[in-house]
Amino acid sequence: MKAAVYRGPGDISIEERDRPEIEDPTDAIVRVTHTAICGSDLWFYRGEEDRADGAPVGHEPMGVVEEVGDEVRHVEPGDRVFAPFAISCGECEFCRKGLHTSCANGASWDEDNGGAQGEYVRSPHANGTLVRVPDRYADDEDALESLLPLTDVMGTGHHAAVCANVEAGDTAVVVGDGAVGLCGVLAAKRLGAERIVAMGHHEDRLELAREFGATEVVSARGEEAIEEARELTYGGANHVLECVGAEAALETAAKVVRPGGHVGYVGVPHVESAEFVEQLFFRNASFTGGPAPVRQYAEELMVDVLQGTLDPSPIFTKTVDLDGVPDGYEAMDQREAIKVMVHVGA
Amino acid sequence: MKAAVYRGPGDISIEERDRPEIEDPTDAIVRVTHTAICGSDLWFYRGEEDRADGAPVGHEPMGVVEEVGDEVRHVEPGDRVFAPFAISCGECEFCRKGLHTSCANGASWDEDNGGAQGEYVRSPHANGTLVRVPDRYADDEDALESLLPLTDVMGTGHHAAVCANVEAGDTAVVVGDGAVGLCGVLAAKRLGAERIVAMGHHEDRLELAREFGATEVVSARGEEAIEEARELTYGGANHVLECVGAEAALETAAKVVRPGGHVGYVGVPHVESAEFVEQLFFRNASFTGGPAPVRQYAEELMVDVLQGTLDPSPIFTKTVDLDGVPDGYEAMDQREAIKVMVHVGA
Repeated sequence: MKAAVYRGPGDISIEERDRPEIEDPTDAIVRVTHTAICGSDLWFYRGEEDRADGAPVGHEPMGVVEEVGDEVRHVEPGDRVFAPFAISCGECEFCRKGLHTSCANGASWDEDNGGAQGEYVRSPHANGTLVRVPDRYADDEDALESLLPLTDVMGTGHHAAVCANVEAGDTAVVVGDGAVGLCGVLAAKRLGAERIVAMGHHEDRLELAREFGATEVVSARGEEAIEEARELTYGGANHVLECVGAEAALETAAKVVRPGGHVGYVGVPHVESAEFVEQLFFRNASFTGGPAPVRQYAEELMVDVLQGTLDPSPIFTKTVDLDGVPDGYEAMDQREAIKVMVHVGA
Repeated sequence: MKAAVYRGPGDISIEERDRPEIEDPTDAIVRVTHTAICGSDLWFYRGEEDRADGAPVGHEPMGVVEEVGDEVRHVEPGDRVFAPFAISCGECEFCRKGLHTSCANGASWDEDNGGAQGEYVRSPHANGTLVRVPDRYADDEDALESLLPLTDVMGTGHHAAVCANVEAGDTAVVVGDGAVGLCGVLAAKRLGAERIVAMGHHEDRLELAREFGATEVVSARGEEAIEEARELTYGGANHVLECVGAEAALETAAKVVRPGGHVGYVGVPHVESAEFVEQLFFRNASFTGGPAPVRQYAEELMVDVLQGTLDPSPIFTKTVDLDGVPDGYEAMDQREAIKVMVHVGA
């Protein structure tokens, strides 16, 4: 089979690999039909994170079940499924409490399981990990493309909103206009936020933020942006979604939150200095987040997607086939695409 | 009048100062009968925080109202009162929401208002700031000594427990065996925690932690202490009270919290590196805290103190008079006392 492989910074190649096989009775083999390239893939692509030469890549698979192990009950061959970026068993303490990203039996797609940017993928813990698309929508291409972001960014934006305690009637600030930030806007809107201030640096993305429900946008930088957001919210927002992870974004979030408010954060924090912690402290702001338990949110978000009240698919501003994956990485690296969909097959 | 004054690192002197007078119609003049020396006073005492030569010190006053301004309705001359470490108006947005330490009209005792380690103090915003002790207990020395910690450390330990989401039946870990940590144990116990693991480095203080309700204590240091606490809690506690503010304590808290759990923190974070933030992130742990809104908690804690179900007074292991304040600082600096009470007059 063909699969995308990491060959060094800026170098993704499509290579022939062995097709995965059932290894454990809880495994399923999925023929990948759709997958995506993630902003977090850019960390290793840019050489800012270690990744072994020859390592498989990708962690957002959707496809059709080909084969299942003896203990798989939740799906059967022929089912259309998708899977969150984190593999989870569904039955340990942490899965039971909805924190699938802390699963006691958890694993990743790319580093542990052959990657999801390829023709086939082996899913361990298929009962807990795979989400089945209802038959009626199993071959509905529009529905599938709207569901694909539930593998990662839509669930992650939702986690930011949940961690920021967004509820109906609230005013929320979303820091970051990448795919996760845009999904954060959708999530805040979906949870009933009345005002949503989107902060970012790209006019086209902020325009999409408006389409997704942002009532105001802030495109300034640094202290000017912070001042603007604080003015718009009469002194800071009670609910701030930090959707980047970079130090400047964390500082912005910590300065834009209202005393006693809530910051939800979902990007791996890449910070040197802990100065923003002091900002949070003197505001008595809560700071909550982590790797989003996307599996926990999959069913509730799928209901909305399938009933037509939630559609994150406009974040895919470019589509490639499997051979086009290297181009897809480049487009995301150059910010020519917000997020790239990989259409592997039917 | 006599008052304690900062004269440089390690140098507190008792000097003659003008007695404060009513300046605004919302002021009250309080004759101080009891006050205390705080662990946070050691920052400037040790030269680790700037303080002007000649600055007044102290922020935990209890006393008898001498005189009130025209707009003061809440107290009258002769009332026994105490006051939280932060002055608050009681009527702004943040006081209304119980976050008196973010009061829009807030001020401090020592830097803004003549200090509380002296014979008299002027209380601005007396309606919002002063807490009246019921007449029945106004001259009950035992009650007064048990109430004195409500000016700061008892409310602060309670805030840590509230921020750590401690509820009945929970298992909590308290990091730090200073006065705030010990009050954190009392607070967790009061909120119904079933198991309380106290972590610290002083056998005598950990013994007091046991008397206050700790079911287990951990006196090891560094990674060994973390391992021990994690073992005692079968993999980490859902509720961690970080009662120090130093980097090592924050790291300990971040490594001892269970995935999906809650860290409450109440010491000003003195950190260089943000490594503990990554620990929190990968556990999806909430991190909440700040300067404790002690005024918000004063009445509910006072009820328990006066009915005899809460008594933080054993944290006072040394008592001095006003002339003994310099000795009191030295005893706390040398860790010869957990906390020093200053008995100024009857």
